[in-house]
Amino acid sequence: MRLLLSRVCLSVVKRTFAMRQFILYARKAVTSSDFSLDDLPGSGGRMDLIARCICNALWISHDLRRDACIHIVACGSPNPPVVISFYGDRLRNVSPDERNIAAWIKKVLASKKRNPGIRIRKISFQQLIAELASEGNFFYILHEKGRDIARVKLKEKRVFVLGDHIGLPGKEEKFVERFEHEKISLGTTSYLASQCITVLHYEMDKKPKPRDFTRLTQDKKINY
Amino acid sequence: MRLLLSRVCLSVVKRTFAMRQFILYARKAVTSSDFSLDDLPGSGGRMDLIARCICNALWISHDLRRDACIHIVACGSPNPPVVISFYGDRLRNVSPDERNIAAWIKKVLASKKRNPGIRIRKISFQQLIAELASEGNFFYILHEKGRDIARVKLKEKRVFVLGDHIGLPGKEEKFVERFEHEKISLGTTSYLASQCITVLHYEMDKKPKPRDFTRLTQDKKINY
Repeated sequence: MRLLLSRVCLSVVKRTFAMRQFILYARKAVTSSDFSLDDLPGSGGRMDLIARCICNALWISHDLRRDACIHIVACGSPNPPVVISFYGDRLRNVSPDERNIAAWIKKVLASKKRNPGIRIRKISFQQLIAELASEGNFFYILHEKGRDIARVKLKEKRVFVLGDHIGLPGKEEKFVERFEHEKISLGTTSYLASQCITVLHYEMDKKPKPRDFTRLTQDKKINY
Repeated sequence: MRLLLSRVCLSVVKRTFAMRQFILYARKAVTSSDFSLDDLPGSGGRMDLIARCICNALWISHDLRRDACIHIVACGSPNPPVVISFYGDRLRNVSPDERNIAAWIKKVLASKKRNPGIRIRKISFQQLIAELASEGNFFYILHEKGRDIARVKLKEKRVFVLGDHIGLPGKEEKFVERFEHEKISLGTTSYLASQCITVLHYEMDKKPKPRDFTRLTQDKKINY
């Protein structure tokens, strides 16, 4: 009976657990390990910006966000595109500083070291979007003319699509628009991509959450 | 007449221009230039955290916040305390990546190079607080039991006081409490100090602003 209830509980968790996924389209991010950790903005193709986005997507004070992941679509030379994904629930031995995060990107690009929380794939932005759409995700495109985030009731399976300092190319934005999506805005200030991620998390943290695992196990109505 | 109106305009600007000041108490931040740019978290005493705070206090997309400044109270070895202040309206030739910001801190600690937007002083946290209080500032201490930021009507002359990853020492918090202050909260999630700064800016960006210089010069009722 105990096992049965645990299984029921886990299936509910699987169904209601709201992931927070981010996609960063990084136009200049290099796609080989041949960049210097001493010059992330230049030789890394704004690898500093990417590291800050990963930090804000996954880290909070003294912990990682287990319900978050970020996909970096690297479109710089010499082998674009490459998608590097960081998962908060599996990440090990990574620190939130730019150099350490970039060092891990360098390692996975060189296929030198593996980390259970980092995945690298030779797929394009459009392939990633199609894959996430097929999994039932809803896309939120950050756009200055979008709907105020505070007024948006976010879908459970949500993916936020962000551009880097240059922005999301029109062609790629149009591709996302083929799927279920909404354009959202964070107000009249143009934030750095990494700051947008922090604000998105903050807005989500404020909203009533779906019943997650912690709440479910603490729920007094369920006895097991 | 034109000159007179300009003077009136400037005095109004001076009176109504709302600065956004941040203080970061950095318990471990080294107080000499003898740290490695390749190891900001270790040899720099969490200089990575400090750089991220400076980045989020002053940078937005393709611009600097001219109305913001941040004071870093460095309390690590070998010569604590030191206050390093970064001003958005005067900063030159600094990039938002951790290494570049830390390199500038290293330069000013070594007294090697000057930047009009960076000031270094051999004063303590309490001296800084007393100085800012004497200038008519109101302090907002970030605290988990504080009042929800969204419900707080912020004073015009506002200073936000933050601790680093260890937090603000009780003794220093009590000292701030001697002056006009309020404890505020950003919700139930414990954010990184740098993320707190982003959220504070976001909340301020959303609130109705006092008439600032840009608005004043664009105001059709004033002819000059």
